[in-house]
Amino acid sequence: MNTIGKILTLTTFGESHGPAMGGVLDGMPAGVDIDLDALQRFVDRRRTGQTAGSSTRDEQDRVEVLSGIWLGKTLGTPIGFIVRNTDARSADYDDIARCYRPNHADFTWEKKYGLRDPRGGGRASARETVARVVAGGIAIQALNALGITVTSQITQVGQCRDAKSCVSQLEDELQRAMADGDTLGGIIECTVKGAPVGLGEPLFGKLHAQLAAAMMSIPSAHGFEYGDGFEMATKRGSEVMDLFERRADGSIGTRSNHSGGIQGGISNGEDIVMRIAFKPVPTLMREVPTVDREGNPVTLQPRGRHDVCVVPRAVPIVEAMAALVILDNYLIKKTNVL
Amino acid sequence: MNTIGKILTLTTFGESHGPAMGGVLDGMPAGVDIDLDALQRFVDRRRTGQTAGSSTRDEQDRVEVLSGIWLGKTLGTPIGFIVRNTDARSADYDDIARCYRPNHADFTWEKKYGLRDPRGGGRASARETVARVVAGGIAIQALNALGITVTSQITQVGQCRDAKSCVSQLEDELQRAMADGDTLGGIIECTVKGAPVGLGEPLFGKLHAQLAAAMMSIPSAHGFEYGDGFEMATKRGSEVMDLFERRADGSIGTRSNHSGGIQGGISNGEDIVMRIAFKPVPTLMREVPTVDREGNPVTLQPRGRHDVCVVPRAVPIVEAMAALVILDNYLIKKTNVL
Amino acid sequence: MNTIGKILTLTTFGESHGPAMGGVLDGMPAGVDIDLDALQRFVDRRRTGQTAGSSTRDEQDRVEVLSGIWLGKTLGTPIGFIVRNTDARSADYDDIARCYRPNHADFTWEKKYGLRDPRGGGRASARETVARVVAGGIAIQALNALGITVTSQITQVGQCRDAKSCVSQLEDELQRAMADGDTLGGIIECTVKGAPVGLGEPLFGKLHAQLAAAMMSIPSAHGFEYGDGFEMATKRGSEVMDLFERRADGSIGTRSNHSGGIQGGISNGEDIVMRIAFKPVPTLMREVPTVDREGNPVTLQPRGRHDVCVVPRAVPIVEAMAALVILDNYLIKKTNVL
Amino acid sequence: MNTIGKILTLTTFGESHGPAMGGVLDGMPAGVDIDLDALQRFVDRRRTGQTAGSSTRDEQDRVEVLSGIWLGKTLGTPIGFIVRNTDARSADYDDIARCYRPNHADFTWEKKYGLRDPRGGGRASARETVARVVAGGIAIQALNALGITVTSQITQVGQCRDAKSCVSQLEDELQRAMADGDTLGGIIECTVKGAPVGLGEPLFGKLHAQLAAAMMSIPSAHGFEYGDGFEMATKRGSEVMDLFERRADGSIGTRSNHSGGIQGGISNGEDIVMRIAFKPVPTLMREVPTVDREGNPVTLQPRGRHDVCVVPRAVPIVEAMAALVILDNYLIKKTNVL
Repeated sequence: MNTIGKILTLTTFGESHGPAMGGVLDGMPAGVDIDLDALQRFVDRRRTGQTAGSSTRDEQDRVEVLSGIWLGKTLGTPIGFIVRNTDARSADYDDIARCYRPNHADFTWEKKYGLRDPRGGGRASARETVARVVAGGIAIQALNALGITVTSQITQVGQCRDAKSCVSQLEDELQRAMADGDTLGGIIECTVKGAPVGLGEPLFGKLHAQLAAAMMSIPSAHGFEYGDGFEMATKRGSEVMDLFERRADGSIGTRSNHSGGIQGGISNGEDIVMRIAFKPVPTLMREVPTVDREGNPVTLQPRGRHDVCVVPRAVPIVEAMAALVILDNYLIKKTNVL
Repeated sequence: MNTIGKILTLTTFGESHGPAMGGVLDGMPAGVDIDLDALQRFVDRRRTGQTAGSSTRDEQDRVEVLSGIWLGKTLGTPIGFIVRNTDARSADYDDIARCYRPNHADFTWEKKYGLRDPRGGGRASARETVARVVAGGIAIQALNALGITVTSQITQVGQCRDAKSCVSQLEDELQRAMADGDTLGGIIECTVKGAPVGLGEPLFGKLHAQLAAAMMSIPSAHGFEYGDGFEMATKRGSEVMDLFERRADGSIGTRSNHSGGIQGGISNGEDIVMRIAFKPVPTLMREVPTVDREGNPVTLQPRGRHDVCVVPRAVPIVEAMAALVILDNYLIKKTNVL
Repeated sequence: MNTIGKILTLTTFGESHGPAMGGVLDGMPAGVDIDLDALQRFVDRRRTGQTAGSSTRDEQDRVEVLSGIWLGKTLGTPIGFIVRNTDARSADYDDIARCYRPNHADFTWEKKYGLRDPRGGGRASARETVARVVAGGIAIQALNALGITVTSQITQVGQCRDAKSCVSQLEDELQRAMADGDTLGGIIECTVKGAPVGLGEPLFGKLHAQLAAAMMSIPSAHGFEYGDGFEMATKRGSEVMDLFERRADGSIGTRSNHSGGIQGGISNGEDIVMRIAFKPVPTLMREVPTVDREGNPVTLQPRGRHDVCVVPRAVPIVEAMAALVILDNYLIKKTNVL
Repeated sequence: MNTIGKILTLTTFGESHGPAMGGVLDGMPAGVDIDLDALQRFVDRRRTGQTAGSSTRDEQDRVEVLSGIWLGKTLGTPIGFIVRNTDARSADYDDIARCYRPNHADFTWEKKYGLRDPRGGGRASARETVARVVAGGIAIQALNALGITVTSQITQVGQCRDAKSCVSQLEDELQRAMADGDTLGGIIECTVKGAPVGLGEPLFGKLHAQLAAAMMSIPSAHGFEYGDGFEMATKRGSEVMDLFERRADGSIGTRSNHSGGIQGGISNGEDIVMRIAFKPVPTLMREVPTVDREGNPVTLQPRGRHDVCVVPRAVPIVEAMAALVILDNYLIKKTNVL
C-alpha cells in the first residue's frame, strides 16, 4: 500500500510531525554511480520557502542514506534513507484534531482507521513527497547514465496558461490569490526523452497506466493524460495519426507525436509526454465553515503554514515519479526475452 | 503484467484470433450468489454489431465458467473462465504482418518481443476486453449485494458533447465519420453509488490512483480525471470546497462533490465520479501511408472489420474495471483494523 | 493466493470435479521454442494408473493451449491452458459432504469459507497439480534451451530407503500397504544441473526459500531441505565446509556440495539439490472413524479411487515446481545490473 | 526481494557495517496497543554476548521507531524503524575483500552483483535479522491481543538432542566446539498456540508454504518441517491419522497432532508446530584454505567476532518470522467472505 513498483520498488513511511520521513528503494541495479551531492540538490528543489506563496515551514531536508550505496556506487541492496522532521510545530494543529477540514483527508482517514494523527495532517501531509523525491532523484541518476532524461514544466496555474512563457504572470497570479487568502491549482507537463522502444507491459501494465497510477498518487492530483489526452476525444482518427517514416539513421520513427510516445501501452522511442492536473490547496488563509466529529458546525481559523499552490513544488515530485516508473520498466523489459 | 488487483485479482489471457480469450478471477469471497444468465447479459452489452459503426465481426461471446462457482455460489476458489473466438478470419490480416499500422501496437510490440502475432492484432486487440467484462460482471453482482452500483454514460463523441441528452446526434456523428472512412474518440463518465467511506489506501494505493491505472489500461484510453478533474487546475480553492454538513440521519456528508467522492485517496461516501477519454479508432476505412519492417513506404488498404468509435462498446468495460477496483478495495478495507 | 512467481507467474484454477483444470503462465519470454508433443508427454508422467497403487481414475489429461504460443514459439503473452476433467464420478463423494475426513482439508476448508465443494475434494484435490505440471513442462523446455536440466528421484517410500536402487522393493512396499488398505509417504530428491551462479535474491527471496515455498505448496508435502539439510544440525562447521578450488577451465567451484548449490541464498554454480518429504495418502481403503458437521461420530466406508502413495506421481510435479522457480529467478537476475 | 508478506509486509534494509539497519512494517492494523519497552526487551533477546560462544561484538540495538506508532497505538500507517550500527570495526574485514570465505555468500554475491560490500558481510550478514526481530516483536504484540502466542525452543545443538531438558549439556557442547575453533548447527521448534481455524490460503499460499519461505529466509536455515515432518515419509497413513472428536465445549478438534495444526494448507485450530534446521556457523576460529578472486589458493586467518552457533540467538528470529506470517494470514482471512 505504501509501496510502488515491480522490480524497482519504493516503500515510504513517515508522518508530517513524527521524527522523520523515509523510504526504501529496492531493486536498484548494482554498480550505478550515485552522486549524493547532486541528489541533495535535486531534493532541495522541492523545499518550501523558495517561491512566492510557498509555506514558510523551514525544513532543511537533509538526506541521510543508511544503506545500499557505498563508495559512490549502488550495491544492489535496498537503499534505505531518512529525512528528519526538524521544524514541526504541532501546537498549530490542535483544533483540527476535533474537526474535519474540507477537501482534506481528516474525515476519510478517521473513518477508515478509527483514529488519526492530526499533527500536520500526519501521513496525509504532502510532506510525504520528500521520500518520493529522494528515491526519484536516485532513479534519475541511473536514467541519465542510460541517456534518458526527465524534465517538467508548469503549463497552467489558475487562469494563467502556458506559464513557461510568462513566469512573471505566474507570480502575479499567486500573489493575487494569496492576497485573497485563496489558493490555486495548476498543470504540470512532464517529458521523458531518450527512452528506448519497448517500455511498458501489456495488459494491465501499460506504460501510461503505470504512469497514471504513479502521478495520481501525488497529493492533490486530479487528472492525468498523455499525448493529446482529453483532446483526443474531440478529434477524428485522421487528425491524430502518427505516420511512420524512415529516418536518416535508418531507424523508424513517427512524424508527429499525438500518441505521446506510447502506443499499445509500450514506448515507441518518441518523447513520452504527459500532463497532470492538481487541485487548489485545500487550506485557505481565511475562515472556513466545517463540522466537528459529531457534525456540529464550527469555524476553522486560518493558521499553520501552507502553500498557495502546490504546483511549483510538485515539479520535482512529478519528475521523481516518472523516473521511478521508467527505470522500473527499463528493468522489466530485460526479462522479455531469454 | 497481465494481472490487476491486490486481494481480488484478475489475470487474463488470449490473442484475438487464437482459440479463446479467458481469465482467472481470484480472491472472490466465498458464498456470493452469482446469476450466470445475468452475467451473460452484461457481457453481451460489449458485443459488436449492436450500434451504428460497430465492427461486423460476429462473436457470440458465450461465457464458459470453468471453476469457482458451484450451485450458483462462489466457492472462494479462483473463477476460471473462457470465451471462445469463433469468427476469426485471419486471412484478412496477412498484409499487416509485414508493415506497421499507425497508432497501433504493431511496431512497439514487435520491437519489444522480437516477434508478434499479427492475426487481428493478437493480444493487443481490443478483443482482450471481453475477459475484463466477464470478471467485472461478477464483481458487479457482489457489489450490488452490498448496495453498491456502478453506472456509466457517454458524455462526448467527437464534437458531440453531453451525448446522453442527444442519442440521435451521436448516431449522426458516427454516420458522418463512417461515411468519410474516418473514426471518432469520446469520453465516458462512470459513477459508483453507495460505496462506504474508507475505500482506498494511502500512499500509492489511493483509490483514484488505482482507478486511473485500471481505466488507463483499457485499450485507446488517453486521459483520466475524477471529480472536477482538469477543471480543478483553473479554479481557486474557495470555488471547489466541498463543505461538510450533518445530514438528517446524523451522518456527515458534503454539500457539493467537486472531489468526486474521494478525499486524500479515500472514498468519503459521496458518489465516486470519474471520466475517461478515448482516442479515435486507429484503423481508418481509407488508404493509409505507412512503412514496412525495413522502413520502406507502403500503403495500407482498408480491410478487416473495425469499429468507427470504441466508446459505445467501452461503456461496460469501464464499469467492469470500476467494479473490480471498488470490490478489491472493499476487501482490503477489512484489514485496516484487527 | 493461487499465483506463484514474480516475473514468471503461474495462476491456476479448477476443482477436481468441475469442467476443467487450468492455468495462466505469464511472463514467459518471447521467442522460446515449445514442443507441444513433448509437453504432453511430460504431463502424461503425472497421470494416474501407471504404477501399482495408483488411483484407477482415468483422466486423459490432454493439454489444450489457448494462447501465448503460436507456430511453435512463445509470443511473450500469457500462456492460458486448460485440461478437461472427463472421468469425474461425483456420486462417489456424496457422504463426504456431510462429514470431515481425517487429515484432509474438509474441516479447515469449510470453516474458512463457510462452504466447500465436496466433489472429489474440490480445489483441495491433488488433481490441481495437473496445471502445475503443464506450466512447469513449459518452463523446463525453456531451461533446457539454456542448458539447465531438472531431474528427480524417489529416495524413500515408507520403510524402503534409497528406492532408486530397488524399484522392485518399492513395488513390494506399495503392494503390502495396499493389501492392508493402508497408505505410504516418501521422499523425493530433486537436482538442478547447469544453473548459473547468481540465482536467488536476498533477503526474503533466497533461492532455497522460494524453492521451499514452491515445494511445500504441493499437496501432502511436510518437509523441505536442501544440501545436507537437517543433517547440518548435527554437524560441526569443519565437517560441512565446501572448500573452493580453481578448475581446469579457470572457473572457481567447490570440492564438495554440502550447501546444495546455494550459498547465502544465491546459486553458486554447483548442482542445486533438495529433498521434499510427503505424508502418507490420508484416504485409507478401510473403515475410518470421524465426525459429521455437528461433531457426531460416524464411520467412513472406503470408496472412491485413490493412490496408495503420492510419491511416484509427485516426481514430475516436483520437477515442475523447481523449473518454475529456477526460470523465474533466471529472469529476475537479468535486472541485477543496468 | 527485500519484502515479505501480502497485507502485512516487512521491507528491510541495511548492511552490517553501514550506518544503520532498518525496516518498514506496512499493513499493521490501526489502533493496536504497542508497548515500546516490551518491544525493546524482545529485541534484546537476540543480542550478542549473552550466551557462551556468542560473538563479542557489542551492539546496543536500540530500536528507534520513526513512524506509524503514536501515543502507544498504531496509526494504520507504515511503521518505519532503524537500529544504528555502533560497534562496527571494518578493519577486521580487509582481507575478506580479496578472497571468498567457504560457505559464506562472498562468492555468490560478488558474481551476482559484480561488486560487494565486504565490511562484515554487508547485507549478507546475520545482522540483518535485527530488523526482522523488531517487526516480529510488533506483530507478536498484536497477536497476543488476539490470544495467539508464539514460543520456541532449541531441540538440538550438534550432537545434543532435546536440549530443553539439558541446558548444561548445550553449554558443554558449545564450549567443546569453541575450544576446537569449530562451530555447531542445531534445530529450533516453534509453536503457535491459539490461532483460529482458517489461516492459510490455497493453493500456493498454504500456511506451511508461507512459513517455510519465511523460516528458510533466515540466515543459515537448511531445512523446514511441520507436524511429523520428515518422519511422515516413513509412516503409514493409519499411523498418522489425526482423528476428529467433539470436545466438551461443542467444538471439533483432533485427538493427535501429526499434522502440526495445518491441514490442506489451512490452520485447524490445533497448535501449529514446525522445526527449522540451521547449519553450523561457517566462520571457524582456525585457519581455513580458500581462493582469491583469481582462484589462487590463500589461507584465511581466524579473526573477527563470530558466534559458535547461531541457534541460541535465532530463537527470537524464528518467533518473529512466525508472528509476521500468522498475523498476515489473520488479516487475509478477513477477506474470505464479503
